[in-house]
Amino acid sequence: MKKYKRNQRIGALMKIFTEKPNYVFSYNYFCEIFNAAKSTISEDMAIVKKLVSELGFGKIETISGATGGAVYIPVLSVEEKNQILSDLCDLFSQKNRILPGGFIYMTDIFNNPSIVSNIAKVIASEFNHVEIDYVVTVETKGIPVSIMTGQQLNVPVAVIRKNNKITEGATVSINYVSGSSNNIQTMSLSRRSLKENSRVLIVDDFMKGGGTCKGMADMMREFNAHVVGTAVVIETKEPEKKLVDDYISLLVLNNINMKDGIIEIQPNSKLLK
Amino acid sequence: MKKYKRNQRIGALMKIFTEKPNYVFSYNYFCEIFNAAKSTISEDMAIVKKLVSELGFGKIETISGATGGAVYIPVLSVEEKNQILSDLCDLFSQKNRILPGGFIYMTDIFNNPSIVSNIAKVIASEFNHVEIDYVVTVETKGIPVSIMTGQQLNVPVAVIRKNNKITEGATVSINYVSGSSNNIQTMSLSRRSLKENSRVLIVDDFMKGGGTCKGMADMMREFNAHVVGTAVVIETKEPEKKLVDDYISLLVLNNINMKDGIIEIQPNSKLLK
Repeated sequence: MKKYKRNQRIGALMKIFTEKPNYVFSYNYFCEIFNAAKSTISEDMAIVKKLVSELGFGKIETISGATGGAVYIPVLSVEEKNQILSDLCDLFSQKNRILPGGFIYMTDIFNNPSIVSNIAKVIASEFNHVEIDYVVTVETKGIPVSIMTGQQLNVPVAVIRKNNKITEGATVSINYVSGSSNNIQTMSLSRRSLKENSRVLIVDDFMKGGGTCKGMADMMREFNAHVVGTAVVIETKEPEKKLVDDYISLLVLNNINMKDGIIEIQPNSKLLK
Repeated sequence: MKKYKRNQRIGALMKIFTEKPNYVFSYNYFCEIFNAAKSTISEDMAIVKKLVSELGFGKIETISGATGGAVYIPVLSVEEKNQILSDLCDLFSQKNRILPGGFIYMTDIFNNPSIVSNIAKVIASEFNHVEIDYVVTVETKGIPVSIMTGQQLNVPVAVIRKNNKITEGATVSINYVSGSSNNIQTMSLSRRSLKENSRVLIVDDFMKGGGTCKGMADMMREFNAHVVGTAVVIETKEPEKKLVDDYISLLVLNNINMKDGIIEIQPNSKLLK
């Protein structure tokens, strides 16, 4: 069987860790794929640990003992978060995004994998010290961010539907008041999508009144799930009082000046401490 | 400014390449972040190239000249594809997935980032020799696979909506006949979501008659876009004749035996050559 050089093992370890953040790999797994002794892998791991820390990629945590392993936890620096959030503000505030009725066209941003992966890294970075079993979102625009946040945190995603679908099996439906339109709407979630007593992170693209996030929190009660965090990409400055209390937003939309076509949006300064 | 060891640079290069497959990084970018001479980066790159190839991760292509750079193109081996598709079949054929009406509960699979990322790698691996500008899908269940395929191919995603939304700006709507239900349905796509004359890869979760994929292809004509490929995760064996001709599927659903609760599904052998 083939043997690999240290350089090669280090490179391969970084690839494997990068693809599955927050996943615990056993030393035995690495011994097998590299055809190397555990002592060799331990030495490699010390190098990888140091490089991840020195290059500001986050941290590698090692679990000792017979079932020992290692896990890569990405952590963004304040500078990286600042860069990502500033770039996002530049994108969202492009003039041609204003739509009739004071809406902003955001779909292209929320469907661009390289942008969404940065958004997900910021959200995951805020919650990687919290025990989470699922990311929960409601269709449609928040799905990409949720999936990539789930990837970063190594947890599955539950997508609440706005209509009941025959392919979801038994569902739980609730009514909620959309904060922006004051309309009563329905959302449904498959009974199978969450285990009882789960710890969930609610993720959505946009929050104005907070009605949708409150609806999701209400839905979680029906599943005996515990909401351990709520993250939205953009919140509007007004109304200041939202229907949910405990949430983080990445960006704050201060104002849309329809006349001059100016969108005033800024990073949430609370995230940059 | 800090200097890094070769080991560290190799590890960091693999992290950077893994996070953005099919993205061309300039040598200058690496010189800057590692505070290293171009000759050093060239030597690093030779090592990375060899390691990527020897460990079966795909290939690194280098572009020479003043604007030189390097790009990581993941390629799965037949063994890896076989493993992923077999694991998927095991998942999809779990007994308790059969729903009333002969449907299969698949939502948890299509919303699980670690499973979806494997599906996306298989699709991307089939199309990484094709020039593609966008991945196109229709909401909802195909979105995660599409986003991750877009990430692998380094292209944005356009999500066709089943309802017209005020946040999409001007849209194009078409009617299509859903192959499975024979109902006429409407799909809409924002005018802004695709540039004219784009080359698109259509991705969806499930194909029975092919009506939805045909609808998406019809929609693409309205955008003067050229469909260069169509990929679905699961196709049903019957009807053998679909409404679209040129597509790949990862899995073929042969039969659902409602009485005994058995789902017969297998990897598409065409992909494993």
